[in-house]
Amino acid sequence: MQTPTAPTANTALPFSVHLLPHLLDQDLLLGSVAVVIDLLRASTTITTALAVGAEAVVPCATVDASRQLATQLADKEILLGGERQGVMIAGFDLDNSPAKYTAERIAGKTIIFTTTNGTAAIDAVAAAERIVIGCFANLNALLDVLIRDGRPVRLICAGTNGEVTVEDALCAGAIANALWTQHGCPDIKDDQTALAMSLWESAGKDRETFLSTLRNSYGGRNLRQLGLDSDIVIASHWDTHPIVPELSTANHTLYPATDTHEDYPVLLQPPKWYTIKPPNLSPPSL
Amino acid sequence: MQTPTAPTANTALPFSVHLLPHLLDQDLLLGSVAVVIDLLRASTTITTALAVGAEAVVPCATVDASRQLATQLADKEILLGGERQGVMIAGFDLDNSPAKYTAERIAGKTIIFTTTNGTAAIDAVAAAERIVIGCFANLNALLDVLIRDGRPVRLICAGTNGEVTVEDALCAGAIANALWTQHGCPDIKDDQTALAMSLWESAGKDRETFLSTLRNSYGGRNLRQLGLDSDIVIASHWDTHPIVPELSTANHTLYPATDTHEDYPVLLQPPKWYTIKPPNLSPPSL
Repeated sequence: MQTPTAPTANTALPFSVHLLPHLLDQDLLLGSVAVVIDLLRASTTITTALAVGAEAVVPCATVDASRQLATQLADKEILLGGERQGVMIAGFDLDNSPAKYTAERIAGKTIIFTTTNGTAAIDAVAAAERIVIGCFANLNALLDVLIRDGRPVRLICAGTNGEVTVEDALCAGAIANALWTQHGCPDIKDDQTALAMSLWESAGKDRETFLSTLRNSYGGRNLRQLGLDSDIVIASHWDTHPIVPELSTANHTLYPATDTHEDYPVLLQPPKWYTIKPPNLSPPSL
Repeated sequence: MQTPTAPTANTALPFSVHLLPHLLDQDLLLGSVAVVIDLLRASTTITTALAVGAEAVVPCATVDASRQLATQLADKEILLGGERQGVMIAGFDLDNSPAKYTAERIAGKTIIFTTTNGTAAIDAVAAAERIVIGCFANLNALLDVLIRDGRPVRLICAGTNGEVTVEDALCAGAIANALWTQHGCPDIKDDQTALAMSLWESAGKDRETFLSTLRNSYGGRNLRQLGLDSDIVIASHWDTHPIVPELSTANHTLYPATDTHEDYPVLLQPPKWYTIKPPNLSPPSL
């Protein structure tokens, strides 16, 4: 059925989840902070790169454009990073595994970075006033920035090849859950947001369920097929990098946001390991 | 990230949920049974109409086409039913409220029926081998038909105006949950299906949560705004109508499926009311 007066359902929401970039009403971006989430792995890798000391990360749509940009930025120390079909691009320096983005390898370097879904999601939210990158690795630092910023927050799941993905929805659901608490637990009058929050509530209840949900997600299945389960485990780690990548619209480049706060509060706790109490094997006392 | 070999993620699934008609890979319809779900209210109303004795329901895309068809079917006892913006169409006999579709009013009649989202969803799955209508009102009768049919099942959420809706996802998640059990609880390698099943697991746990989830859904919010909470309650009732509307491709008309089974098993129990145990107010025995 249709709405009686045909407004969008979520015009007034201070935060909302969008399961794919094209499932977002562009009007919602006006005056907002857009959080781009491509958990496995672009968001986690970009966050890691800037946290361990990369000078900047330049998201680039295509492989050819990346190579061309590298020649234009010859005054900088450049590395080419990214993936196609999950694996490293011929002639590139780095793939899309956060494990490869170590301080030894990338400190002080500018990374030109191209992935299919993460880059497209950044481009899809160009109308937002501010664009940042979210993942579990920076979750509470990100929440702190979002809450102190105060503008409406649009959580954009990158998805994979135009399909909804559980890994991005789970991360967006976690962030939405914390923002919901901050806003006094209002009724959720937006159905994509309700779906993502429901996913987080069921899949984020303990670390076993959380990790198995990530492993069974679209991105998780792909990574396991490539023998990259370790990247799923890295992306499941919580608050490892207290920085928030932010897109400078001046030069379409990601830098650490300058309004991060070192002593950010932990608004959302990571899922704990569920430990089954061992049976009491000692004889009963007489 | 992309798939390594770029197949669709869910080619081999015996059942899958699609949160909107356009989030469905058309290839999945080949050889399948498509279940169209527009819970609030087209699915529930069509099921009610056929269960209480309507001769047939003819889904029609537009108001004009409905009126034109009524003149072509002058040999039948015709009623015009449906809605635009949730309310009755000028000159029509019935709106889209299942409460209005009583035996007294519609037995023996052919209903020409037009709603925005439900009709479009039926048209979007034309490539399926069989098309049926699902809702909570016929859930276990539907499951019985689907399981005995044996073909892959595609659960298609109609959504509202191109937006994902919780009410349709919740119903699809319930059906998927029962089919999943029937298939031996395999890993869910499809992310829309995982999302809908997760929603059902959390929102279907007791009748209070179930009903409040429906009331807070997109369709539920719209109905409450129109003063039609009673239609939400009707759509939340379980197994009230043991029939399965099926589309005849010969004349694009819905009739009760002929392979329903009177003694269908209850494969999925409706949510129970959650009752808090009252405190023991009697004095302790001495």
